[in-house]
Amino acid sequence: MREILIIGAGKSTSVLISHLLKNAEKEDIFLNICDIDFESAKKATPNHSLCKAFSLDVFNNESRENAIKKADIVISMLPARFHIEVARDCLKFNKNMVTASYISTAMKALDTNVKEKGLIFMNEIGVDPGIDHMSAMQVIDKIREKGGKMISFESFTGGLVAPESDTNLWNYKFTWNPRNVVVAGQGGVAEFIQEGKYKYIPYHRLFRRTEFLEVPGYGKFEGYANRNSLDYMSIYGLENVLTLFRGTIRKVGFSRAWNMFVQLGMTDDSFVMKDSETMSYRDFVNSFLPYSPTDSVELKLRHNLKIDQDDIMWEKLIELDLFNSEKKIGIKEATPAQALQKILMEKWLLSPEDKDMIVMYHKFGYELNGKRKQIDSTMVHIGKNQNETAMAKTVGLPVAIAALKILNGEITTPGVQLPIKKEVYGSILKELENHGIVFKELETEYLGYSPFGAVGN
Amino acid sequence: MREILIIGAGKSTSVLISHLLKNAEKEDIFLNICDIDFESAKKATPNHSLCKAFSLDVFNNESRENAIKKADIVISMLPARFHIEVARDCLKFNKNMVTASYISTAMKALDTNVKEKGLIFMNEIGVDPGIDHMSAMQVIDKIREKGGKMISFESFTGGLVAPESDTNLWNYKFTWNPRNVVVAGQGGVAEFIQEGKYKYIPYHRLFRRTEFLEVPGYGKFEGYANRNSLDYMSIYGLENVLTLFRGTIRKVGFSRAWNMFVQLGMTDDSFVMKDSETMSYRDFVNSFLPYSPTDSVELKLRHNLKIDQDDIMWEKLIELDLFNSEKKIGIKEATPAQALQKILMEKWLLSPEDKDMIVMYHKFGYELNGKRKQIDSTMVHIGKNQNETAMAKTVGLPVAIAALKILNGEITTPGVQLPIKKEVYGSILKELENHGIVFKELETEYLGYSPFGAVGN
Repeated sequence: MREILIIGAGKSTSVLISHLLKNAEKEDIFLNICDIDFESAKKATPNHSLCKAFSLDVFNNESRENAIKKADIVISMLPARFHIEVARDCLKFNKNMVTASYISTAMKALDTNVKEKGLIFMNEIGVDPGIDHMSAMQVIDKIREKGGKMISFESFTGGLVAPESDTNLWNYKFTWNPRNVVVAGQGGVAEFIQEGKYKYIPYHRLFRRTEFLEVPGYGKFEGYANRNSLDYMSIYGLENVLTLFRGTIRKVGFSRAWNMFVQLGMTDDSFVMKDSETMSYRDFVNSFLPYSPTDSVELKLRHNLKIDQDDIMWEKLIELDLFNSEKKIGIKEATPAQALQKILMEKWLLSPEDKDMIVMYHKFGYELNGKRKQIDSTMVHIGKNQNETAMAKTVGLPVAIAALKILNGEITTPGVQLPIKKEVYGSILKELENHGIVFKELETEYLGYSPFGAVGN
Repeated sequence: MREILIIGAGKSTSVLISHLLKNAEKEDIFLNICDIDFESAKKATPNHSLCKAFSLDVFNNESRENAIKKADIVISMLPARFHIEVARDCLKFNKNMVTASYISTAMKALDTNVKEKGLIFMNEIGVDPGIDHMSAMQVIDKIREKGGKMISFESFTGGLVAPESDTNLWNYKFTWNPRNVVVAGQGGVAEFIQEGKYKYIPYHRLFRRTEFLEVPGYGKFEGYANRNSLDYMSIYGLENVLTLFRGTIRKVGFSRAWNMFVQLGMTDDSFVMKDSETMSYRDFVNSFLPYSPTDSVELKLRHNLKIDQDDIMWEKLIELDLFNSEKKIGIKEATPAQALQKILMEKWLLSPEDKDMIVMYHKFGYELNGKRKQIDSTMVHIGKNQNETAMAKTVGLPVAIAALKILNGEITTPGVQLPIKKEVYGSILKELENHGIVFKELETEYLGYSPFGAVGN
């Protein structure tokens, strides 16, 4: 019997574990599920003879080494910065490894040694990063095999609430880590290239420079730019494309409304607010507005952000109870971002029956036989409920599938890698289709940004 | 003969050195003037028997120690981060020291040892910080001596161009380090308190939340918030005031126009732009605007920043030649801030006969015998020309005066300090008056922020 070690028993592990257990007898595997918190590990571990829960502190060298030593493959679902502790042991004890996180510099540095030992350290194999890589590279490779030349690539992903559970004015609920949503886009300028022109958007303009997307059957969405689009030139081998843009999908109107928080300074995570524990929601808002002896917080905010009397943005703020003078932030030494998260979590958590939705949209522009063409590829996946979310499924399933394929010798190329090789994405995408994660491709005329052939700016 | 060692021979040393030389015979002093660049040292050193120039690398322990060992007092005019090298030697060889820079954490940490040895390390004794501390504390101490209780303190300083040399639409020229102007306000939120309410302004709103100031004889100015107002609670002993606000003075309209650069992202110093060396001014502007196949950079900018057809802000951009497609940035791996600085330096440098101007404005609110009162204190000082600037004078003179007073035993309290003690500011402000640096005080009714006594927000 082969043993799979799963380190870290958070939200995303439910689908991962249930998929592995479903196949446990057939695959002859046993799951060792651990977390620093034994209760979390126990909660994540079903009552099943082929798995067991235990507690593990990854910073305790002895217990970490012991656990890794006896595994046949290791899946690390820890926060990204902790993977490296696990990776070093995997190298030492010749174990393959899978994570859903971006490859860190420290992880990348192990590549030569990992290759020398013929090991596979598969990373970025969740949904974003993960399914985005695989589904994009599948189309890019297909275009190249036909002799086409890539000229533009745009890619958008969003974790949203499903239409049937879309019950607030923001058309948004938290389906993953709320903190990541609040600080999204911070820490650097968004860089990308459009028709050969490098473009930069500073954080405070990010949510006002969105693009619209139409997803067949699901209507209009909007996308704001991710920070790191240009990194994908080398990752996908797109060094010569004229347009490269990656973004995050929201329902139309979200970004314009979110921009109110950005403008006020409420998403700032870099300083601690005075008296944050006893501060009311209203005090919180007021601290970002000029002092006035006579005017209300409401009017000051309307004036400050130039919100017209009949603008729906205003109703979005009211829905959040933002001007309530009774409700307290209640967090000691809170940053504005932490305070805002507290306010949003009161309204934006999924109810037990709420369904979430993953939306992915790729646009591929290419030249074939002197003609410009375009392929649009879209995927929408809807969750079951608060626990069996589309997010947990699209993160957990590819991780589980990849782990089994590595264990069974179906994926063989060694190295610290992400799933951009046909050997990897081909079979995994096929298996994902069996689970209802399906991309629809639409071939169209090339539109690009210069539909009239004019000289661009 | 007493030897004064002056380390660092930059812009601000001209007035410092000429003041000391004027008093050299009377005071029986000799000036040793050094810089890492011998040419700079020579240029700063007049042809005079009581001074000499030499080159000194402060990171060369031996030559630094030798120079400090034989000095009677050390004036460090180095960039702020280098003072600590000098300070450690001053402590070791029992030398007093003077700088015009903010006290760093490292410098502060020497306080106990400096006091034990009875030494004086006087810092923050230029204009801002410097004259602002002294002139504010003189009034605050006077109010307290009368039995008054401080309730508010606002203080503004600006280095501007004098009215007679004010020849551009921005009403601004560089009178000091241009880089500091371009990145001003970055690196953290501006925090202050108004009528008992803590307020926070993020960088991207800083230049749209200005206050107007009226300086008798000089008209209206505006002030934007400095980052660190709250630090002055402990520095000036103002822990219980309701209002504490420090700001930077500009001519009216500057901040609203500067905000265009902030909004576009042109003041960002955190990333390097692609192809910055060959990029034209027009390319630079365009990189912060959306791609369009048909529209001009001009119209995209107008639209993006909502600049009306007849708004003078537009003329300000034109004056800078911002849309020129021939002129190149010409700097390898430039950040946006460096590129913008290049563009501005072409237009905003002082001409040989241009005069600069220092403006300082303090508002003190206090309660005396149950009555609220206010003192407004203003100082305007105008320079002679491009070299003998008001800036160089108001920075260099207090440093020179303080150094002599320490040398002559007129300032005696030991420790790492700034000039907030009567012993220090009293005699220095008096001597500055003889050089035309004079504050005008105006007593008025207390205005504060609640002139109608309404309940505040």
